[in-house]
Amino acid sequence: MPAAPAMPAAPTAIDVGLLSPVRAGTPAEAATSDTAWLQAMLDAEAALARAQARLGTLPPAAAAAITGAADAGRLDVRALALAARETANPVVGLVAAFTRVVAATDPAAAEYVHRGSTSQDVLDTGMMLVATRTLKLLRADLLRTAAALAGLAAAHRDTVLAGRTLALHAVPTTFGLKAAGWRHLLLDAVQRIDRLRLPVSVGGAAGTLAGYLEYARIDGDGPVPEDYADQLAAAYACETGLCAPALPWHTLRTPVADLGAVLAHTAGALGKFAVDVLLLARTETAEAAEPAPAGRGASSAMPHKRNPVLATLIRSAALVVPALAGTLAQALVSEDERSAGVWHAEWHTLREALRLTAGAAHTAVELAEGLDADPARMRANLDRTAGLLVTERIAAVLAPRLGKAAARDLLTEASARSHRTGTPLPEVLAADATLHGVLGPEELRDLLEPAHYTGAAGPLTDRALKRGANA
Amino acid sequence: MPAAPAMPAAPTAIDVGLLSPVRAGTPAEAATSDTAWLQAMLDAEAALARAQARLGTLPPAAAAAITGAADAGRLDVRALALAARETANPVVGLVAAFTRVVAATDPAAAEYVHRGSTSQDVLDTGMMLVATRTLKLLRADLLRTAAALAGLAAAHRDTVLAGRTLALHAVPTTFGLKAAGWRHLLLDAVQRIDRLRLPVSVGGAAGTLAGYLEYARIDGDGPVPEDYADQLAAAYACETGLCAPALPWHTLRTPVADLGAVLAHTAGALGKFAVDVLLLARTETAEAAEPAPAGRGASSAMPHKRNPVLATLIRSAALVVPALAGTLAQALVSEDERSAGVWHAEWHTLREALRLTAGAAHTAVELAEGLDADPARMRANLDRTAGLLVTERIAAVLAPRLGKAAARDLLTEASARSHRTGTPLPEVLAADATLHGVLGPEELRDLLEPAHYTGAAGPLTDRALKRGANA
Amino acid sequence: MPAAPAMPAAPTAIDVGLLSPVRAGTPAEAATSDTAWLQAMLDAEAALARAQARLGTLPPAAAAAITGAADAGRLDVRALALAARETANPVVGLVAAFTRVVAATDPAAAEYVHRGSTSQDVLDTGMMLVATRTLKLLRADLLRTAAALAGLAAAHRDTVLAGRTLALHAVPTTFGLKAAGWRHLLLDAVQRIDRLRLPVSVGGAAGTLAGYLEYARIDGDGPVPEDYADQLAAAYACETGLCAPALPWHTLRTPVADLGAVLAHTAGALGKFAVDVLLLARTETAEAAEPAPAGRGASSAMPHKRNPVLATLIRSAALVVPALAGTLAQALVSEDERSAGVWHAEWHTLREALRLTAGAAHTAVELAEGLDADPARMRANLDRTAGLLVTERIAAVLAPRLGKAAARDLLTEASARSHRTGTPLPEVLAADATLHGVLGPEELRDLLEPAHYTGAAGPLTDRALKRGANA
Amino acid sequence: MPAAPAMPAAPTAIDVGLLSPVRAGTPAEAATSDTAWLQAMLDAEAALARAQARLGTLPPAAAAAITGAADAGRLDVRALALAARETANPVVGLVAAFTRVVAATDPAAAEYVHRGSTSQDVLDTGMMLVATRTLKLLRADLLRTAAALAGLAAAHRDTVLAGRTLALHAVPTTFGLKAAGWRHLLLDAVQRIDRLRLPVSVGGAAGTLAGYLEYARIDGDGPVPEDYADQLAAAYACETGLCAPALPWHTLRTPVADLGAVLAHTAGALGKFAVDVLLLARTETAEAAEPAPAGRGASSAMPHKRNPVLATLIRSAALVVPALAGTLAQALVSEDERSAGVWHAEWHTLREALRLTAGAAHTAVELAEGLDADPARMRANLDRTAGLLVTERIAAVLAPRLGKAAARDLLTEASARSHRTGTPLPEVLAADATLHGVLGPEELRDLLEPAHYTGAAGPLTDRALKRGANA
Repeated sequence: MPAAPAMPAAPTAIDVGLLSPVRAGTPAEAATSDTAWLQAMLDAEAALARAQARLGTLPPAAAAAITGAADAGRLDVRALALAARETANPVVGLVAAFTRVVAATDPAAAEYVHRGSTSQDVLDTGMMLVATRTLKLLRADLLRTAAALAGLAAAHRDTVLAGRTLALHAVPTTFGLKAAGWRHLLLDAVQRIDRLRLPVSVGGAAGTLAGYLEYARIDGDGPVPEDYADQLAAAYACETGLCAPALPWHTLRTPVADLGAVLAHTAGALGKFAVDVLLLARTETAEAAEPAPAGRGASSAMPHKRNPVLATLIRSAALVVPALAGTLAQALVSEDERSAGVWHAEWHTLREALRLTAGAAHTAVELAEGLDADPARMRANLDRTAGLLVTERIAAVLAPRLGKAAARDLLTEASARSHRTGTPLPEVLAADATLHGVLGPEELRDLLEPAHYTGAAGPLTDRALKRGANA
Repeated sequence: MPAAPAMPAAPTAIDVGLLSPVRAGTPAEAATSDTAWLQAMLDAEAALARAQARLGTLPPAAAAAITGAADAGRLDVRALALAARETANPVVGLVAAFTRVVAATDPAAAEYVHRGSTSQDVLDTGMMLVATRTLKLLRADLLRTAAALAGLAAAHRDTVLAGRTLALHAVPTTFGLKAAGWRHLLLDAVQRIDRLRLPVSVGGAAGTLAGYLEYARIDGDGPVPEDYADQLAAAYACETGLCAPALPWHTLRTPVADLGAVLAHTAGALGKFAVDVLLLARTETAEAAEPAPAGRGASSAMPHKRNPVLATLIRSAALVVPALAGTLAQALVSEDERSAGVWHAEWHTLREALRLTAGAAHTAVELAEGLDADPARMRANLDRTAGLLVTERIAAVLAPRLGKAAARDLLTEASARSHRTGTPLPEVLAADATLHGVLGPEELRDLLEPAHYTGAAGPLTDRALKRGANA
Repeated sequence: MPAAPAMPAAPTAIDVGLLSPVRAGTPAEAATSDTAWLQAMLDAEAALARAQARLGTLPPAAAAAITGAADAGRLDVRALALAARETANPVVGLVAAFTRVVAATDPAAAEYVHRGSTSQDVLDTGMMLVATRTLKLLRADLLRTAAALAGLAAAHRDTVLAGRTLALHAVPTTFGLKAAGWRHLLLDAVQRIDRLRLPVSVGGAAGTLAGYLEYARIDGDGPVPEDYADQLAAAYACETGLCAPALPWHTLRTPVADLGAVLAHTAGALGKFAVDVLLLARTETAEAAEPAPAGRGASSAMPHKRNPVLATLIRSAALVVPALAGTLAQALVSEDERSAGVWHAEWHTLREALRLTAGAAHTAVELAEGLDADPARMRANLDRTAGLLVTERIAAVLAPRLGKAAARDLLTEASARSHRTGTPLPEVLAADATLHGVLGPEELRDLLEPAHYTGAAGPLTDRALKRGANA
Repeated sequence: MPAAPAMPAAPTAIDVGLLSPVRAGTPAEAATSDTAWLQAMLDAEAALARAQARLGTLPPAAAAAITGAADAGRLDVRALALAARETANPVVGLVAAFTRVVAATDPAAAEYVHRGSTSQDVLDTGMMLVATRTLKLLRADLLRTAAALAGLAAAHRDTVLAGRTLALHAVPTTFGLKAAGWRHLLLDAVQRIDRLRLPVSVGGAAGTLAGYLEYARIDGDGPVPEDYADQLAAAYACETGLCAPALPWHTLRTPVADLGAVLAHTAGALGKFAVDVLLLARTETAEAAEPAPAGRGASSAMPHKRNPVLATLIRSAALVVPALAGTLAQALVSEDERSAGVWHAEWHTLREALRLTAGAAHTAVELAEGLDADPARMRANLDRTAGLLVTERIAAVLAPRLGKAAARDLLTEASARSHRTGTPLPEVLAADATLHGVLGPEELRDLLEPAHYTGAAGPLTDRALKRGANA
């Protein structure tokens, strides 16, 4: 029999999403693609030229020509990727190739490409542009998901189900409060995204802007102002829509660590929603189900299954992103004026964190908008434990009558007897001699009703729903 | 010959810092000790009672008695640790033991201990108190370190040294700008600490506050107000100095994930300072040295060594904390109304992150205050490469005279020739026929002076030093 | 009202297990305590002296005196911890203190303490001794757990329950196969432990053994043999029960990375067991319960609860250890002949991984030995989905009769109709006109019986149980 | 001025290596591409059919037709990636599409595609094939690197340089021993790779093989043998070159965790080599340089630089892989018979770990084969500290003459005086009255020669070089 065939022939799809369905085909995948990064780096080059032109240290016509040529479609992204092995970053090759593109239409402008600049300024500014663009998608999907959850929370404000702790029924809660909690976490994520300040990178070879200043001296009309570095950063920020940094940040990596932290939080917040859905969807519980358009959730083997695939995909992202964020935090420890390797570890790691998190948010929109909650089943599951969920309450009521410890012991013993004998707790309690004269049958019936013991679930839900996207 | 002896006899010191010198004996170690956590949980119980008393749902005398008894010294912390194996958390045992302590002096008050509460409310509130107290130490040490670095930056505003990228001399920079950068990262950390909002935990068994409301009904004078949950959270916050949460957060773990992220950032910021010091201290470079009081940095074998132990300790913490923060971010994915295991994974992980980071900051104070910079050695190291650091500048100056590409090629070839032949670059350039008439000897001399090519290092340092602790 | 009290007064329990119930009071906690590490480092010093004596380069009487004095009880472990801040490791202080202890009874022997050695040799050898001793405990607990699981697997070889995939009932399986799978993972862990080769560390100041050789020359009788380094490593290995390394491994950290990997695997294997128990224990499923001696699993608020605390504790460890192992793998990147910080990051990280994993294994013994499986409930849960679990089988049987695609479509549609209408699948199928003449009622009844569709579960269980601890 | 342009137009290169130069264009990138995974999954389908044919439960002609059609070039990998969002894995779509391909030439054979199988069997078997093929590349590159390092070690067996600990000169060592250490770590990695046992996956829908058995009953000639599951696994293993697993491993994830651990070790081993090269290459040290063919290591700004790009790229991989391995270890905690999300987190994570590690190994070949060591510079750096490196030795020699403590104190004081006054240590010692009559000038000269104090560096190097690839 033949052995398995050898490696496949060209052309090879290196990564078109086959192993990462959580982001395959989502807008975030496109926004973080190699093409998008290349475009963002070209945008950075063009914006830099325009910023220099604003300050009178680069001819406006050159800035216009550079801007006009800054189109990823004119460069061969794979060739740049391969060339990057020679210099450990893709910018050296990009500058050479882009200069040729500019020169083809405007040789004079070509002299002004990357004027005074350095690889890290271009790559880092491009990285911040990619992040900004992807965060915009992410934010919108978080808000759509939050809106759908707000709808669920309002609709189910008083839908009672079992609160579960350490895997077991604890006391009653409401589905409204659960959904309001999921939404709350997502708004926490939005708030953290909105707090990010992503800067342009403008430091030159070693963070002193010496090259920029030298060219400003050479290319400008008069003396270079004292605060040229500030002016350049401000103009560059203006041209890109990014912030102006207080200091060059080649090895002061707060922006990247912050991004990692926010993405880990966001992925985790989405993951919380996903694991709760997975638990509610379990066959025995069945209190919620995923939306199931035709074909969704099919199994290759079992015709009856409608797998909770959206929650599964979201959870897969939540399991991966925190470790990526750890790597990005680790990268704060960048030595010298530019690290040999630490900086290089950030790029793809950040890309992965961005696209997984934003892919998960995109997936969550559909999950939240189509989530199918089953109040009847919630009630049926509550009824199964027939009163065990309210032992805390009965203990509280009995405490002033019997003493706290005695009340607690009585309930513990009654619960155990119910479990041991199969007699429902209400019957065990009704038969308990200690309670005669202490607790009437009507009060007992009231105490045993789960819907009467949801505490502040309603008001908490109302208050939570008042929180807007900006709080 | 005998085999190695068996395990040591009691009493056993489980962890008194032997394996973690970065925090051994520091204030942060005490502030995060088991005793400190126990005290914080007792503080939480006492504050809860006082909050309930404020709202008229608990007798003030009982609150006072509970507060008076809330002293970790009256409990056996090891016994509580052992008992926690029965219930998977230390609070069940703590409540029982603390109730006995209260009962010993005020049996009536004992009924009101932990009234309506749940283990997680106490542990989480205690955890936030421990975090708050440790962050206060951490913040102060960051500011002391930043102040020392500000002094260094000001003193060395114009001290030139080699900027280094990818391990090699790149272009000149200043020691002032380096120190200002270290300080800047630490102020970023302070800013992130100041942004944290650490809440009390008040949710009851499953996050609905049902138990609190039930007891308020039983213990209070009149009907329980609609917004009792809000009032209780606000009063509890007031009693503890923590924030009031918008929702119970038993499985909405933003506060813990935020703490992890901020600690990872802070540890990384300190780590950046440490690795730079280690590189400056290397024998061949020797541009900076650690403070060396008697005994510090001694080697067990080599009498001549003065090891950079402070930077070593700081770096060791920076290598560990990001992964701990990753675990804390992972813990956002907490299922149900209380997780079976995820919550439990947070406690010691957070403690470790707190004490390592704050220990590192404490260590950094001494490093920054005693750091010994050697400007003469910086200059000597600059001179070794005789002009190579300013090739970028010379290329810029020649660009308009020879064309950008030709200028760059000329410098590349001259650098290579200098490297190949051992002839210093200035001589190679002086002998280059292409430059005759293009670059006079005086201009060349000026261009070759590293101190003339520090770009905006000075103004950047000045501006960075204007940043205060609150920006 | 008073603010919360300030920090607690001394004496402070830094860590006696309050935050880590998974290991509090377990033998692993003692085996990894600071006292145990101190003893192990003293054992290393003593064994080194005996090894040198074996080779004739140290007086036997001195080795005996050193061995006799090597008792952690004679040193102040807290004082050593504090002193370690001066030198970044605890060995410098330990050598000084231990030398004084030896000198007190045998001044001549004191000269021979730590002869030719270096801090890292002592700390690393001690670390390997601690690891070896803890692994012995861990291994025994894994085997006890595996034995209990073997009992469960054999007893429940034919107990049918729902196989669950992506949270839903899939096809039937057996509890025997589940238990056999848990055991299999634990035996994988044992196998990986048994494969570890933990070496002594004997390199001297920079890994050349120069100090050892110099003292051998000075202290020995004749010329030092060519292969003295090998002989010393072999003798040292013999005295400690550890292996002799091929090369000094001060910055060749395979042993530590291997330990991390094995502990992460083991913790994960235990975690798999724990999460399955947690899911089986959920109130709606209730197919298995934890052992519940009095007091175990009590809630501070809810008298009825018997929380699955053992599984909770085990899971908490499994969530933490992999990230610690990542830090240990990261530590392979140790620069020079001894790292400034990377080595220092290993000690406490490894200790934590050891004690969490071994604590989890200790906890798993009790969980496995007392696990209470409920076959009746398993059957009841199977019956709830009335045939949906065997759609795969019916599709297979129908494939040759109707064609694979048609068979599959028929089952998909029948499952959906059953779900939509609430009609049990058997009735839907019985009523399906396409099946008349294709599938008789008796065959259908047989096909619908879950117990008839457990595939190779039985033989697989039998085979798995034949695997011994050494395979 | 215009804002930066919007997102780029199609076609978009999602990932062609632009952000990951360490693997761009390497054989490992192709071996782990989406196309390669698709081919491997098709190989799995084909091998499964052949295995079933071997056992007489599938027509040989169908197996041949399926094998003939199993060509990734006939499927649209991007379409499969997009379809995977519907089912949370790419196999459901793959089976449908592949069945159509088979049906196009052999409709009867199409019935036998994926016979009795399940998505996870195909994806996991494909994953193990991809891993096996990539490990083969990785192993070969490790051995080539090791061979080059063996050459360096042999050539520089006696080349003395400063051993460095905690960033400072410690005692002398040899470049041969350094290179032998790097090689040793890589051989440790090869050994761990060789120990891996990567199995086929054959479990069916829930790990009981029920579907396989049912079809065997339907398609086979006679009764299905008791041990059909074993026979199928063995035949499948034989057809793929993988191992036969003891149990289905859908949620017993030792193989994946093992892969993660081995890749983390390997990346770390390569990283150790890289950081040592980076430190040796620093401008002030300059004891080693990377190979520098034209264009390699160019800077976009500084004509003089020849950046150590190979070491930089290798280090970037070493910083990322351990966290990925942590995620894979975490995935051991896979619930039920198939996880909803944990399994899904493995695929891309493992791919990333494989291609980064193998890319780093490929890069290391070039680094090791071209590494340029500079013995003269090593000696010059040694001479700078004029004797400080041998204080340990002198202390040892003086110990029996002056007492250990006195000898040590004398050297400590002499080192400090030398540092304080700038007087070279030899002169300080020559002038020290205590040494008159104790140490003659000739002995002192001998003691001060670094090359006379390399300990066992030579013999250790010799022994290390005897280790072959299989030990």
